[in-house]
Amino acid sequence: MLSGGDDGVPDGIGMARLAWTRLPTADAEGAGPSTSAAAAGDELFSAAAVESLDYEVIENYAYREEQAQRSKFWVPYYVMLKWLFSLLIGVAAGSGIPEIKGYLNGVDTHGILLFRTLVGKIFGSIGSVGGGLALGKEGPLVHTGACIASLLGQGGSAEYHLSSRWVRIFESDRDRRDLVTCGCAAGVAAAFRAPVGGVLFALEEVTSWWRSHLMWRVFFTSAVVAVVVRSAMNWCNSGKCGHFGAGGFIIWDISGGQEDYSYQELFPMAIIGVIGGLLGALFNQLTLYITKWRRTYLHKKGKRVQIFEACLISLVTSTISFVLPLLRKCSPCPQLETNSGIECPHPPGTDGNFVNFYCSKDKEYNDLATIFFNTQDDAIRNLFSAKTFHEYSAQSLITFLVMFYSLAVVTFGTAVPAGQFVPGIMIGSTYGRLVGMFVVKYYKKLNIEEGTYALLGAASFLGGSMRMTVSLCVIMVEITNNLKLLPLIMLVLLVSKAVGDFFNEGLYEEQARLRGIPLLDSRPKQVMRNMNAKDACKNQKVVCLPRVSRVIDIVSVLRTNKHNGFPVVDRGQNGESLVIGLILRSHLLVLLQAKVDFQNSPFPCGPGVLNRHNFSDFVKPASSKGKSIDDIHLTEDELGLYLDLAPFLNPSPYIVPEDMSLAKVYNLFRQLGLRHIFVVPRPSRVVGLITRKDLLLEEDGNTAMAELQSTSVRGLLNGRLLGGNAHLERPLLDNLVIE
Amino acid sequence: MLSGGDDGVPDGIGMARLAWTRLPTADAEGAGPSTSAAAAGDELFSAAAVESLDYEVIENYAYREEQAQRSKFWVPYYVMLKWLFSLLIGVAAGSGIPEIKGYLNGVDTHGILLFRTLVGKIFGSIGSVGGGLALGKEGPLVHTGACIASLLGQGGSAEYHLSSRWVRIFESDRDRRDLVTCGCAAGVAAAFRAPVGGVLFALEEVTSWWRSHLMWRVFFTSAVVAVVVRSAMNWCNSGKCGHFGAGGFIIWDISGGQEDYSYQELFPMAIIGVIGGLLGALFNQLTLYITKWRRTYLHKKGKRVQIFEACLISLVTSTISFVLPLLRKCSPCPQLETNSGIECPHPPGTDGNFVNFYCSKDKEYNDLATIFFNTQDDAIRNLFSAKTFHEYSAQSLITFLVMFYSLAVVTFGTAVPAGQFVPGIMIGSTYGRLVGMFVVKYYKKLNIEEGTYALLGAASFLGGSMRMTVSLCVIMVEITNNLKLLPLIMLVLLVSKAVGDFFNEGLYEEQARLRGIPLLDSRPKQVMRNMNAKDACKNQKVVCLPRVSRVIDIVSVLRTNKHNGFPVVDRGQNGESLVIGLILRSHLLVLLQAKVDFQNSPFPCGPGVLNRHNFSDFVKPASSKGKSIDDIHLTEDELGLYLDLAPFLNPSPYIVPEDMSLAKVYNLFRQLGLRHIFVVPRPSRVVGLITRKDLLLEEDGNTAMAELQSTSVRGLLNGRLLGGNAHLERPLLDNLVIE
Repeated sequence: MLSGGDDGVPDGIGMARLAWTRLPTADAEGAGPSTSAAAAGDELFSAAAVESLDYEVIENYAYREEQAQRSKFWVPYYVMLKWLFSLLIGVAAGSGIPEIKGYLNGVDTHGILLFRTLVGKIFGSIGSVGGGLALGKEGPLVHTGACIASLLGQGGSAEYHLSSRWVRIFESDRDRRDLVTCGCAAGVAAAFRAPVGGVLFALEEVTSWWRSHLMWRVFFTSAVVAVVVRSAMNWCNSGKCGHFGAGGFIIWDISGGQEDYSYQELFPMAIIGVIGGLLGALFNQLTLYITKWRRTYLHKKGKRVQIFEACLISLVTSTISFVLPLLRKCSPCPQLETNSGIECPHPPGTDGNFVNFYCSKDKEYNDLATIFFNTQDDAIRNLFSAKTFHEYSAQSLITFLVMFYSLAVVTFGTAVPAGQFVPGIMIGSTYGRLVGMFVVKYYKKLNIEEGTYALLGAASFLGGSMRMTVSLCVIMVEITNNLKLLPLIMLVLLVSKAVGDFFNEGLYEEQARLRGIPLLDSRPKQVMRNMNAKDACKNQKVVCLPRVSRVIDIVSVLRTNKHNGFPVVDRGQNGESLVIGLILRSHLLVLLQAKVDFQNSPFPCGPGVLNRHNFSDFVKPASSKGKSIDDIHLTEDELGLYLDLAPFLNPSPYIVPEDMSLAKVYNLFRQLGLRHIFVVPRPSRVVGLITRKDLLLEEDGNTAMAELQSTSVRGLLNGRLLGGNAHLERPLLDNLVIE
Repeated sequence: MLSGGDDGVPDGIGMARLAWTRLPTADAEGAGPSTSAAAAGDELFSAAAVESLDYEVIENYAYREEQAQRSKFWVPYYVMLKWLFSLLIGVAAGSGIPEIKGYLNGVDTHGILLFRTLVGKIFGSIGSVGGGLALGKEGPLVHTGACIASLLGQGGSAEYHLSSRWVRIFESDRDRRDLVTCGCAAGVAAAFRAPVGGVLFALEEVTSWWRSHLMWRVFFTSAVVAVVVRSAMNWCNSGKCGHFGAGGFIIWDISGGQEDYSYQELFPMAIIGVIGGLLGALFNQLTLYITKWRRTYLHKKGKRVQIFEACLISLVTSTISFVLPLLRKCSPCPQLETNSGIECPHPPGTDGNFVNFYCSKDKEYNDLATIFFNTQDDAIRNLFSAKTFHEYSAQSLITFLVMFYSLAVVTFGTAVPAGQFVPGIMIGSTYGRLVGMFVVKYYKKLNIEEGTYALLGAASFLGGSMRMTVSLCVIMVEITNNLKLLPLIMLVLLVSKAVGDFFNEGLYEEQARLRGIPLLDSRPKQVMRNMNAKDACKNQKVVCLPRVSRVIDIVSVLRTNKHNGFPVVDRGQNGESLVIGLILRSHLLVLLQAKVDFQNSPFPCGPGVLNRHNFSDFVKPASSKGKSIDDIHLTEDELGLYLDLAPFLNPSPYIVPEDMSLAKVYNLFRQLGLRHIFVVPRPSRVVGLITRKDLLLEEDGNTAMAELQSTSVRGLLNGRLLGGNAHLERPLLDNLVIE
């Protein structure tokens, strides 16, 4: 009775002046894209992957574990600890970047920005990285930054009664989204100590809607992060904080390395790019298959299986890290320059190159242990190192590459917080150094260093897997401080991204799709060019609500379908039907729960509605599932009452004519970040044309503009700009109200 | 008779099947923003500032002039030459960046991307920079890049018969716009040898619509530029090309300088930021006033006055550069470290620090001449230099600052190609070094270098004047190769931009406004929130055309108003009027000129229309003024014929209901880069609602999607996807045609 076109609209509405307001609707004026709302009712979205888990809080064993690692006598203990670890943290999952990307694209996966997610992520990440698994800390740090930003944006966590109202300056969805973007940038800036890289990562990889104002904010955030990290490092210089800040502000400084290159080198560099593209695309594909398999067969069997899986992988990782170097023979130490600052083997209690691992003689080192038995940071520093020639044998590098690649593929997707940046750099720098060894051998005359190739390899693998360009480039430069290699990094990235794009999508996009996060690409699909708006909603039954509805009708509409928005129709002056706006399911639920707006008469209500409501009543809390119609209990009497929807609806959602090309509709939807578009019949007349000229207010020396402005100012004085409830006095839709 | 609402539509249209096509309309499906078209008729736009001048081709005197400068004996000759120079080039104006920014925002200033502009810009810039005026080459290089891109995009210059059809792969406005963006990036990348900085400059400062695909293209362009510039520098290493590439790939390498800083230094650095913000804002304001004054009083008097003005400024510049150092006493050479590679005074025939300028003794130098009598590159290198302490006296620095600042303000806006980057760096590094001198004096214990402060000063002035953040930051790092100063540069930029924003807009925005280029900001103005769409077009008289119009009516419509687009109306099945689309003035002019579509009957034409037209007939050539109605001559007979507009119109322009908030309309207009929006009455019913779910085609495992897709495929087979003229067979607007 309420559904279908414009039936069911009661006659005889009118008489009262129409109260009007602007609620925090998803596509409110000037608010741009909406983010936090897409999930509530559409099954497609809320069924996203990250379960809400009860994370356990774990101590920071990372430092203790590193200590343990330093001496070979502690190795069995170390293996045990590793194993224990992953057991404890086996309940926090993934890098979080696909989910954040989805959030900023308009898909709110439940639970990704909660306080408990934050805690689980932080401690889980400390455990998993400290445990020596084949994963990194960058993804979780980005997620951590986003969580903190989101909690700040809503003024704390409502769940744990930690919220404070005074921080709630971020009322609109857009502000919150911007804050989350800043959080992501802060995460990368902190992880790599790369402030500009963080800005670009947030802009290139994470956000879907970019504005120049956002850039400025993100930049500010990153600058603050840079200063704070530096201060912390200065403070920790005396060794108070373990290894933190040990490598200096530039993590893997190779500024002393190769500064020049010849054209002969471009060929092996292109080969590195191709290898990176291939291995990166393969990595994406393998992780996709394994995650699918895992989801289909393994994770259905409950959390115990997940924990067992994480333990198993951790055990395998530990075993491989320990056994493989054992099998490898030690090599005699090379003659090192006295000034290089490198010792072979490095003394116990320090870290660095040339690890002595069960070597029989004093002046020997185990090259495989040099990679396996170091922290990831040190291992990468050694691989990038320009000062050491022929430190690694090809055999060791290949062994490490194969093992670590397999471990990274298998570890990805287990229930531990996992970043892909550092493993990517490890894998890339290994084969890069391998190529470098051959190049050094082949072009003997040139001043080539293996470390340069390791760096390019790292860039190529990340490019081939994540498909970033500018941000990756800047991050690589910021973490290595060798600007002269920039053109080479750019070229390698171009090649590897092109090769990777030939096979599949980027890692984050693939994972987002797998997790059921429906990202809207920036471009419409080809097939849309040949469809029109009507085609897209051909099978829909539009459920309209009359302006003054009976409560029982509203309840039955909400129960019988899962739509998130409903057009509201009314009769115009001549009795013709008119669409007067869109009301959101969530707002209807708020109204039904509040019950204060129920009225006896089937006629529009008078002014004063807004006194009964706070603006914040209608704001959906971030990362909550929202209300459900089943939670609301109404008596028989209440069900018989009426509700005037006019004050609560979005009076002018964007509309498109029914025969508009779907590609155009898509552009509208995607560019403005909308949630609902009304498809309407072709209009019968044009009231006016808006061109650029009409939108250039406040221009000097143009009388037409000035006049336009003055009329608008008159319009304002006529009601809407005046504070308080003055805007209620002037109906916006005069022609809708039958006087 | 044709104007006003939906009057003037002849009855009894119909019978024939409606032919339909997609012309290259400005807001065609999926094409996104339009750029090249905004100018044609709206007076507001085409009256932009850059006159189409006949540039004179000038030889490259820059090198000869530098030679001349090296020895003091040539000074009078040098002054003369400088003077001659500016005379010759006094006919090419400005940096071009505001115009390009306008172009990418949707305002096509006539003449900015022509071949002759390119030639004038290149040679003019060589002349003006070589002539030693207080301006730089970066702005003109950006403009040059944009011109080349635009010419490539249209396959050459039609004007000089240099076009080739096979290059015309860039058919849509959006592709051309993207290409121009790439051109800008290439300009910056080449000017500073800063590829990543170029990408970011294009994205942050120049473009209005940013997409991830664009980033990838711009990045590719920059990478190619980096490789080409490097190759050219290698090739020129032997001295074949004069000074080109003399400084190495990093223009002002200060990587050997200060690497660390203490917290006490943050205060003077903040002061530098504040000074930068103040001086930058003042610079913007002064140039604004002077340009206004110049335009009002000076340039109205003709080109001779402009040339005279340029000559005068050039003469003043030369005189000051020559006389001021003469007045300054020479200082004795300091004790230099033997390894520093600096000689005092530097021998004739080389360039660098410690210039001997009419000094009486051998071991003396003139510090003011060290700044004035070097190329700008060398002067900046000396100011940034970390190896020289107390090289400059405060007196000299202040003298130079005042003189150069005044010269830069006065020179800006003369009729010569002028960039503001290098002058900005000069000004900034001068006061930066000045502050640095005091800091060095005050904090004697710290390892502080004056050059660091010069760099920060340069960043602060550019930040205060141009208000860029990320791109400027990356450019500063790329040109100095000292990544460790990045956090400082970020902080200084934050302060100076904030201080500058307090006073006025950025340089390019101010200049664009002054030149009558109406840039649409990314955010709607506050006043728009309280207006609605109807308010914006309150004073308009909408001029509609009936679907089949008489030629004489079309001509009279085109003559009597200056609108660029006209709604086309028709009668639906039940005789009600329906808006069937938008036809552009430019397309009407093409049709009137071609005359092939004129018909005798007042009924819609049959299929086959498109055989008479090429797609390219309707493409507006870039940077041309377009056709005018006065150029078209029609006989009496022809005026009596009819023209069916249906095949040529844009069938579904974006529409908004009349009471939609103007801020929302603005968002729609700005984000999608539209030219026309129809304001229509509130719709009477909703045909469907489009949500994210409806736009997620090609998703796996979702039957609803699959079904939707299959219906669309059926729809395609039904006519539109089939090649050739098949799409003509199926009327898109069945309901419009009375069968």
